[in-house]
Amino acid sequence: MAIQDLYPERYAYCFGCGSRNTHGHHIRTEWDGDETVSTFTPEAWHIAVPGFVYGGVIASLVDCHSTGTAAAAMLRSAEDSGTVVPGQEMPFRFVTASLQVQYLKPTPLGVALTIRGRVREWKGRKVVVESTVYAEGVATARGEVVAVQMPENFGVES
Amino acid sequence: MAIQDLYPERYAYCFGCGSRNTHGHHIRTEWDGDETVSTFTPEAWHIAVPGFVYGGVIASLVDCHSTGTAAAAMLRSAEDSGTVVPGQEMPFRFVTASLQVQYLKPTPLGVALTIRGRVREWKGRKVVVESTVYAEGVATARGEVVAVQMPENFGVES
Repeated sequence: MAIQDLYPERYAYCFGCGSRNTHGHHIRTEWDGDETVSTFTPEAWHIAVPGFVYGGVIASLVDCHSTGTAAAAMLRSAEDSGTVVPGQEMPFRFVTASLQVQYLKPTPLGVALTIRGRVREWKGRKVVVESTVYAEGVATARGEVVAVQMPENFGVES
Repeated sequence: MAIQDLYPERYAYCFGCGSRNTHGHHIRTEWDGDETVSTFTPEAWHIAVPGFVYGGVIASLVDCHSTGTAAAAMLRSAEDSGTVVPGQEMPFRFVTASLQVQYLKPTPLGVALTIRGRVREWKGRKVVVESTVYAEGVATARGEVVAVQMPENFGVES
């Protein structure tokens, strides 16, 4: 199960990772040991120049995979300490305070991409996550996201 | 006329700014004095959480507006010096070496966004551009792109 499957319904419409956004990328972040992993195969129209993936899509992968990793890490910790019961609705949702991406190489279009994330720093409501995008085993982009836990009422329409 | 209208046909399919990408954002960068400007109205599905624009779309606006600004600046300089004749096919196309975005405030969904860019540094084939995203006059995100002029044969299928 991906961390995004646990987001409450009202937060399940994100263009990057919302399972209910019919136009979106549906990024799905899962644990793999101490890292998180997701895979994404860009569509033909996610092109930059012929043969290569658009950098804004790569930035989106880094963004949602990283905020998902921050939520997953906080959930795992809360479950370990017993403050959250496994299986209950996801109580943590993060927003992006800053996003940084280095494009190491052109990312080829037409293959599945793997994104791997790791928590680098964690202080209160702020979690810093590093995510790397791989194409056929080669790191093509590396990003860092400063993710901040959202206020409870953020995005709730009054 | 936007700078993207001058890109050669093979570079006109970018998901962010290609005029020929039927699924894309069609970002269009124009001069406004010493700054560049573009406007973009996100679609309903470009959502993060209810009421607000997805950060990956904002990163895409910063990305393509900034690489467009780099190309526009290089073209203006080449036209001024007479090395390029105005109206000929765009000889400069930039790729993104790095992208950095600070999300200053949540960006409201449902309004037109304005992106304003400015060249901050220029050294050979490398141009650093700062772009700011405004919603109803309020700066909601600020980004910096290190744009590098593409090799001539980049993305040309052999």
